[in-house]
Amino acid sequence: MSNFLDTIQSPADVKRLTIPQLTQMAEEIRERLILGVAKTGGHIGPNLGVVELTLAMHYVFDTPRDSFVFDVSHQAYVHKMLTGRNDRFETIRQPGGLNGFMLRTESEHDSYGAGHAGTALSAALGMAVARDMSGGSEHVVALCGDAAFTNGISFEAMNNIAAQTKRLIVVLNDNAWSIDKNVGAIAEYFHKIVTNPTIAGLHDRAAGLLERFGGKTVRHVARKAEEAAKGLIGPGMLFEEFGLSYYGPLDGHNLPLLIETFRFLKRQNKPVLLHAITQKGRGFQPALEHQKKFHGLGPYDPHTGGPPGETKPAGQKTYSEIFAESLVKLADGNDKVVAITAAMPNGTALDLFRPHHPKRYFDVGIAEEHAVIFAAGMATKGYKPFCAIYSTFLQRAFDQVVHDVCLQNLPVVFCMDRGGLSGDDGPTHHGLFDISYLRSVPNIVHMVPKDEDELADMMYTALLHDGPVAIRYPRGTGPGTPVKQRPAALAIGVAEVVRDGHDVAIWGLGAMLPEAMRLAKLLEREGFSAAVINPRFAKPIDRERVAEFGLHCGLLVTFEDHVLAGGFGSAVLEAVNDLELAVPVVRVGWPDQFIEHGKVEALRQKYGLTAEAALEKARPYLAAMESRRMAVR
Amino acid sequence: MSNFLDTIQSPADVKRLTIPQLTQMAEEIRERLILGVAKTGGHIGPNLGVVELTLAMHYVFDTPRDSFVFDVSHQAYVHKMLTGRNDRFETIRQPGGLNGFMLRTESEHDSYGAGHAGTALSAALGMAVARDMSGGSEHVVALCGDAAFTNGISFEAMNNIAAQTKRLIVVLNDNAWSIDKNVGAIAEYFHKIVTNPTIAGLHDRAAGLLERFGGKTVRHVARKAEEAAKGLIGPGMLFEEFGLSYYGPLDGHNLPLLIETFRFLKRQNKPVLLHAITQKGRGFQPALEHQKKFHGLGPYDPHTGGPPGETKPAGQKTYSEIFAESLVKLADGNDKVVAITAAMPNGTALDLFRPHHPKRYFDVGIAEEHAVIFAAGMATKGYKPFCAIYSTFLQRAFDQVVHDVCLQNLPVVFCMDRGGLSGDDGPTHHGLFDISYLRSVPNIVHMVPKDEDELADMMYTALLHDGPVAIRYPRGTGPGTPVKQRPAALAIGVAEVVRDGHDVAIWGLGAMLPEAMRLAKLLEREGFSAAVINPRFAKPIDRERVAEFGLHCGLLVTFEDHVLAGGFGSAVLEAVNDLELAVPVVRVGWPDQFIEHGKVEALRQKYGLTAEAALEKARPYLAAMESRRMAVR
Repeated sequence: MSNFLDTIQSPADVKRLTIPQLTQMAEEIRERLILGVAKTGGHIGPNLGVVELTLAMHYVFDTPRDSFVFDVSHQAYVHKMLTGRNDRFETIRQPGGLNGFMLRTESEHDSYGAGHAGTALSAALGMAVARDMSGGSEHVVALCGDAAFTNGISFEAMNNIAAQTKRLIVVLNDNAWSIDKNVGAIAEYFHKIVTNPTIAGLHDRAAGLLERFGGKTVRHVARKAEEAAKGLIGPGMLFEEFGLSYYGPLDGHNLPLLIETFRFLKRQNKPVLLHAITQKGRGFQPALEHQKKFHGLGPYDPHTGGPPGETKPAGQKTYSEIFAESLVKLADGNDKVVAITAAMPNGTALDLFRPHHPKRYFDVGIAEEHAVIFAAGMATKGYKPFCAIYSTFLQRAFDQVVHDVCLQNLPVVFCMDRGGLSGDDGPTHHGLFDISYLRSVPNIVHMVPKDEDELADMMYTALLHDGPVAIRYPRGTGPGTPVKQRPAALAIGVAEVVRDGHDVAIWGLGAMLPEAMRLAKLLEREGFSAAVINPRFAKPIDRERVAEFGLHCGLLVTFEDHVLAGGFGSAVLEAVNDLELAVPVVRVGWPDQFIEHGKVEALRQKYGLTAEAALEKARPYLAAMESRRMAVR
Repeated sequence: MSNFLDTIQSPADVKRLTIPQLTQMAEEIRERLILGVAKTGGHIGPNLGVVELTLAMHYVFDTPRDSFVFDVSHQAYVHKMLTGRNDRFETIRQPGGLNGFMLRTESEHDSYGAGHAGTALSAALGMAVARDMSGGSEHVVALCGDAAFTNGISFEAMNNIAAQTKRLIVVLNDNAWSIDKNVGAIAEYFHKIVTNPTIAGLHDRAAGLLERFGGKTVRHVARKAEEAAKGLIGPGMLFEEFGLSYYGPLDGHNLPLLIETFRFLKRQNKPVLLHAITQKGRGFQPALEHQKKFHGLGPYDPHTGGPPGETKPAGQKTYSEIFAESLVKLADGNDKVVAITAAMPNGTALDLFRPHHPKRYFDVGIAEEHAVIFAAGMATKGYKPFCAIYSTFLQRAFDQVVHDVCLQNLPVVFCMDRGGLSGDDGPTHHGLFDISYLRSVPNIVHMVPKDEDELADMMYTALLHDGPVAIRYPRGTGPGTPVKQRPAALAIGVAEVVRDGHDVAIWGLGAMLPEAMRLAKLLEREGFSAAVINPRFAKPIDRERVAEFGLHCGLLVTFEDHVLAGGFGSAVLEAVNDLELAVPVVRVGWPDQFIEHGKVEALRQKYGLTAEAALEKARPYLAAMESRRMAVR
């Protein structure tokens, strides 16, 4: 195998192949995807679905002169193989290796980076308009999954396309799935088009005709399919109403058909949309049978799709699972509790909640803004919505958190999974800003649990609190603390003193508490008595505890899995200053730069989020304390 | 006049009137709107357009049992008159008076507050789903302007409506305008429906038939109009594809027709959309002739629509105007400069830019997220986009600022008008969070000018800087500093020392610089030498200046027109702490609560954003300095 794929250094090499050779290479690509991602983990399903689409695009277009914009860009693995990164493919998502998404700094063929959905049409339109203004002739192609159309930005862009350019090619990669099964009216609309028997018939004919008559037929058949169906259900009418000429639906795995169609589309002097039907996970039976699981995952056995040797600690649950189980219990006891996800039932583990309370479970699509306002609307009628949205994705609903929830002081709970460094997914998925952007907003309470049991307590506390609450917790597993039978209500704004001490006081927020404990032990070895505090609340912070330790300690230290600018340590500084304490604060957190993908532990080492690094930062203050002590003696 | 209107204490009183009486009252309402808003300023045009719609809604529905959600809710003045706030109408937007938007704390009839566009459908759907879950029978009616459909949230909501409820009434209030003329494919789509001759004919017939046959006809005619037109241009197909049953278009000023239609719609067991055609400014000639001006404005002469006695300082330009004129100059000299607005050409003054560079001017609709990504796309192709977006509205594109612009380090400039307290419009429009939410984001430079000339310099500096920049400037006029012929480039991250001193150093950010100067003079009178610094940069802040003054001064003071939590003073605190300085900082800014509407000066007094209040906060530190001095002597 791998006769052709190994020869590909750049898209020019793709163009040298014949169509039968391309077809063979498609299989080679699939094999490399399945074997490679088995080791690295990653978005196997979506990439298996776009093998032919990507090949056809590189066969017909000419990057980097032409620009490809991939929505979310988790489906860019094949593109990476074809654009000079073939030999490094097995480093994908590995420390120092290729990023799992498009990255402008990685290759000139990655014209636009992404990791959040719904941005491709807007970015592509910006590029197309720039091209038009500069009098260029290059092409801009946006590849969007069907789920991108559950996101409002896609519609904001569509509203502008026809008025602003005559040349933009949109490819709708329709596999009826986002990460989970796609939801709502748009999904149903696409389904109606695809299952219409008239269109299906024409579509089969198209492939046959192509062999006989070549390129011109494609145009004819594609148009015919459209016209015939318009009277029935209006396929593409939605897009036509927005001024995009609709072509399709076409088989997204028929390479010759795709190539001919792209050749036709690139000659059009109007914005066009090609509706391609693809199969997520194509060519890998386990992925076809478990589309949800194989959207994006860790390493697996390439033959069975089962887990490889190692896996997570036996029997230990992730924070997401603890969240879901706790919410089931809260919902069992209170019929006003509802759960909302923006197309992430699997990632947030709300799919575990769903069977228990199907009528109180809402997946609203990749629509974070709507999710938050929808929650606010329910809250006005006495319901208690828990919105499970990753920290990085809640950024998309910041205004709605401010304008709809906090300004109206409505009791909506934001459960921010992936709060902190996300690791392998990289900077688009790190959740490093939520304390900064939320703590400036009046009325909200921001909590961070030290372990699984405290997450359950915080959710219960949020249930009881009559106002907006945000809870952030990290990706993956925690320390493994068992969750007690009945959750306890926490006092809002009160920290927990985990360990007493009088020289140094260390605040260890959430997942950083163990590091705070380690620092205390390091300090102890050097003769300093150190208190350790589990802050529990990033807002309101416990000013009494700050006053208590700030008065008698010679140094405060804060640990947070968050940027330093405006973060938790900054809130402690504000308190220290407002309380007129003169104690210095050593703040440990992420620096003012975007953090690359990698292993969390290694990145913490690299950027100094460790007890040892904190100790070094504390040295000057410790020395001063020491000399003051000596002076006193 | 005002025979009927004066009798209205609640919606029950509306229901007692006959239709001819209601028709007369509509004119009374118009007169009160024109005379009242002439004194207070406000959204006169939109409210004149919804007089009959609001009357019909209150005639047929029953708030607060039924819920009305108004998109943006600047068109709620008539609703306020009819729901117990008639006698206070002339206090609207006045200090201590009625808010200019719906406010849940103001009346039980205001079921949902808003000030930003596109939120009504999501909130209404939340309410409808809550009602369904509780087994209630009340109605939820969302009233949305046509421009709400340029915003993506409306589509995110529409994608969910049909799947989640069978009872929701959407009223599309179509006047072909948002604040400015509506833009894009959606606007064109609505225009096609309304100007279709078949529909127009049926629509005229509907009014006539109604008189003869009463209610049942409406249903028949409305449906007929729809069916007839479907074959032509598919009116409502867009909505039908989303699962909403479309009715219309109807004359939004025909009270009997509206009443019959609402009676019909409330009996439907499916989500419905009524397309009502209204005229913005109806009944007030100046408003009809100048729709843009009369969307929302200050006080005016109720007869001519011209300015009342007083106006802004003669010849003085607003910050918005200075921004637009500066951008024209930059664009004159650099053909890569482009201007982007999200439906606010008037508010941001970009309508002054447009005639100079029409091809480099983009109004993308109420689509802040798209605006930012579109800008990012253009920036990848070498363009230099200046996005003029109010501080409060940029909250809607926070994730795009992070994920698309800053993470890719693209040279997009955000010109944040209305940075700081906005005054009369109240909490939905105050721009008090931008420093907190932006300064945590790597790569961005955040500037705040002290005056008009410095705004021009900052825009020039932004043009030269190869990375993301945000500039915030306040509503209205500044100190009136003339703008020099050629702008100067500022050194990034370098503050300006305006006045030297050695006891106290005062940082006065942007519009707060005069207050910093006043404090310096108050301190001088008390025998303290005070330096005043114009920080220019909220990020990166000038650590050298902090070190310089922090070392030899006994106190630092920061003034900012921004919340204290995570704001500019907090950034100074971080610097003081990181530089291991022991100097205390008195931070002056807005407290951790939402600030009501009112006059800026009065609210600054009330919340302590004055030199006098700062002096009081500084007293303990000044006393300590004094006693240290005494000790030295």
